[in-house]
Amino acid sequence: MEEAKKQVPRKKLSAEEIENALNDLDGWKIENVNLKKRFEFSNFAESLAFVNRVGAIAEAADHHPDIRFGWGYAEFSITTHDTGGLTKNDFDLAAAIENL
Amino acid sequence: MEEAKKQVPRKKLSAEEIENALNDLDGWKIENVNLKKRFEFSNFAESLAFVNRVGAIAEAADHHPDIRFGWGYAEFSITTHDTGGLTKNDFDLAAAIENL
Repeated sequence: MEEAKKQVPRKKLSAEEIENALNDLDGWKIENVNLKKRFEFSNFAESLAFVNRVGAIAEAADHHPDIRFGWGYAEFSITTHDTGGLTKNDFDLAAAIENL
Repeated sequence: MEEAKKQVPRKKLSAEEIENALNDLDGWKIENVNLKKRFEFSNFAESLAFVNRVGAIAEAADHHPDIRFGWGYAEFSITTHDTGGLTKNDFDLAAAIENL
């Protein structure tokens, strides 16, 4: 039997699950149903290099953050649009960015 | 005589100069003293590829936009922070992005 390509539906986390997951991360916060963090860098090139590393893991995970960046900073916002809430995928991506 | 490495001070453009410069661009608008445009793409990888091309010209010009991007879009905001207004450099960078 061929394995279905369709992704397993993503389960919206409860408030308690979100609180626990947030405790496992460093410096991330929730804002408008998005998991967010700002990173600081020394110049534009370093920001862009970090953004590209995040881009690679986002593509691998097929889960894509919204990114703001410029000279000396990069901010990531992660949510699961189709679920309308935060899911384990969001926290997994945040952890992967954290571990870069 | 050696040429000075210091950049020529950037002159804040007048309202009329801004209007004329804006007429030479396609789809850019002014918002909070920033020159802005949103581009649409088919997926995350295309957005990131475009952002990298903009990053290369920003580094070459030593003039860096603020960038927001994610799955299917990239938005650029350009201003000259030290001048506190729009300058020719901002419009030159916008034109270079436009011509990519």
